[in-house]
Amino acid sequence: MSGVLVSYASGHGTTEAFARSVAEGAEAVQGVKVTLKKTEDTTVTDFASADGVILGSPVHMGSIDWRVKKLIDEVCAYMWISDSAVGKVGGVFVCGSGVGNVGGGSELAMLTMLANLAELGMVIVPLPRTTPGYFTNGLHWGPAGITGENEDHTPVGVPDEQLIVARHHGMNVARVTAALAGQRLLNP
Amino acid sequence: MSGVLVSYASGHGTTEAFARSVAEGAEAVQGVKVTLKKTEDTTVTDFASADGVILGSPVHMGSIDWRVKKLIDEVCAYMWISDSAVGKVGGVFVCGSGVGNVGGGSELAMLTMLANLAELGMVIVPLPRTTPGYFTNGLHWGPAGITGENEDHTPVGVPDEQLIVARHHGMNVARVTAALAGQRLLNP
Amino acid sequence: MSGVLVSYASGHGTTEAFARSVAEGAEAVQGVKVTLKKTEDTTVTDFASADGVILGSPVHMGSIDWRVKKLIDEVCAYMWISDSAVGKVGGVFVCGSGVGNVGGGSELAMLTMLANLAELGMVIVPLPRTTPGYFTNGLHWGPAGITGENEDHTPVGVPDEQLIVARHHGMNVARVTAALAGQRLLNP
Amino acid sequence: MSGVLVSYASGHGTTEAFARSVAEGAEAVQGVKVTLKKTEDTTVTDFASADGVILGSPVHMGSIDWRVKKLIDEVCAYMWISDSAVGKVGGVFVCGSGVGNVGGGSELAMLTMLANLAELGMVIVPLPRTTPGYFTNGLHWGPAGITGENEDHTPVGVPDEQLIVARHHGMNVARVTAALAGQRLLNP
Repeated sequence: MSGVLVSYASGHGTTEAFARSVAEGAEAVQGVKVTLKKTEDTTVTDFASADGVILGSPVHMGSIDWRVKKLIDEVCAYMWISDSAVGKVGGVFVCGSGVGNVGGGSELAMLTMLANLAELGMVIVPLPRTTPGYFTNGLHWGPAGITGENEDHTPVGVPDEQLIVARHHGMNVARVTAALAGQRLLNP
Repeated sequence: MSGVLVSYASGHGTTEAFARSVAEGAEAVQGVKVTLKKTEDTTVTDFASADGVILGSPVHMGSIDWRVKKLIDEVCAYMWISDSAVGKVGGVFVCGSGVGNVGGGSELAMLTMLANLAELGMVIVPLPRTTPGYFTNGLHWGPAGITGENEDHTPVGVPDEQLIVARHHGMNVARVTAALAGQRLLNP
Repeated sequence: MSGVLVSYASGHGTTEAFARSVAEGAEAVQGVKVTLKKTEDTTVTDFASADGVILGSPVHMGSIDWRVKKLIDEVCAYMWISDSAVGKVGGVFVCGSGVGNVGGGSELAMLTMLANLAELGMVIVPLPRTTPGYFTNGLHWGPAGITGENEDHTPVGVPDEQLIVARHHGMNVARVTAALAGQRLLNP
Repeated sequence: MSGVLVSYASGHGTTEAFARSVAEGAEAVQGVKVTLKKTEDTTVTDFASADGVILGSPVHMGSIDWRVKKLIDEVCAYMWISDSAVGKVGGVFVCGSGVGNVGGGSELAMLTMLANLAELGMVIVPLPRTTPGYFTNGLHWGPAGITGENEDHTPVGVPDEQLIVARHHGMNVARVTAALAGQRLLNP
């Protein structure tokens, strides 16, 4: 049995909807058990007991939500000091407003979370173009929800078809997690 | 009189259309003279005689066209060795396929060209959200054309309304260029 | 008279030492008045009354300190909504451990702060190679302190010679700020 | 038997020395056969017959050598169109001058090559802090040679101890390649 942690921040529920779909996808993989947590509730124990980790964030001002960064600085940093996530598997996703039609900082937001996974020594699963839903919500680093904006800059939310890519990304990360879990391939 | 160089690579003419609009915008600023060149034809003299530089590229595999990188490695590197672009002004733009609806690497492509401008010591003009056309083709680092793709992966091309943001970016970079030209503000 | 805001987070005082040197440099430029604040104490009014902004952060897990991101999400986002920083001037700096001898994420940390400045529509001042101190503590995006690490991963701190580049970066940003203050060059 | 392709550009032989060490490390893993090629000589067949790919580049002007980008645009793009590298394994390395002591663009150079691997749908192996040699030549994205500079900006070259991290990175990527080769875990 392999464990996958999905940890996310969400302001208005859109990234949460994406996170749930990622988690459902991962859970659908045989032999995988998923823990779904908000960043604020995620603990060192959650990380320590997971074989794979998927981090998700809204895009704010061209990068991740500060609450995800707080998780990284306080919880993930502990994993880094103890070298206890080396060789585990990870992936990322974001939800952005879609203003400008070219991601609005989704890429740098993903890279910031991926940098954390790389610091921890985790093997990274990208988003292949062959993933269902890629053509409407895909960047090569991971799935990207496009929330739209109301006049007060709150998100409109994501329609169900956007969640397809999230679900499949969850499956992909979970499959690689299950394949590598328990093996000590990096600096054994 | 200030000089602005617009240097670009283009495969099927789309980035060229964007480059022409950037150049038209810059030319529309009083006291500014524009040189528009393909990267392959751009020389050290073009750089040396410009007060501002705007680089443009198609997005290929999540970064810039190799011909733009060749210009950077061979022509811009010469400017770097001689420290002769310090304090000049620069900006960037890209054209991508739009596959995935979140930029498809437009951001990292822009950052690669901006890294070159920063290495040269050039002051960077971003793309404010207040720029006309931002909401259809804007990233905070610069304008981004969305070309669409034919079945053979060639670009469909950009409709005229996409060129608005390019024209205004050209004006913005040209105005800052004119304001700073001839001043030696960085490490005088 | 132009105003420059230097806003920084600091855990053990190293980034604070850098911030003080940046502020001293900016203050040394004629006609410039500096406000030096921790991110936690920085307000919308501080931003609104500044013509130039310099953000500084420790490097944690390959990106900026969460407290800087909280400032960006809560204070800078307000400036973004109101488009009230467009055409102002900005720069960044970081302090990292130096583990690995190639920056350890200093670049992505700087880019995350620069993304915020770009979102706000601010003109960006990089770090030219001609800046005194560049060869010991310079990246083209800005100055980078190298703190070293004690056995418990706390920073050793930065010797005085590292502060040279910080001081000169402050001067550079302040000079460009003074030159552009009050002009409305971007989308006038 | 799994195949690992190591493809690199090199101007003065330093990145080539790194590439040889990466290749030696990969070859040392049981059941792995390595192909070592300059980017200029690397073909679609080389990519198609490899289960894992390690790309290496000198750092020029804050990003990769144009010859590596040409390989990506012309050879890797073909793999992308045909979706034939999905689920393969990859890693990267760079060699930079070390000017400034914080990587001088090593990170963005690595990210540009990693973007290509992600576009191809390849699983990415980072560089864990536990890797021998990390503390002298390591970034979390991969190994980084520091070449020094002669007065004419040519590299001094890398001493043998710098090659340790390259060798171990080769081993790590090769082990993950062997573990995943032939499995169709991404969008099966």
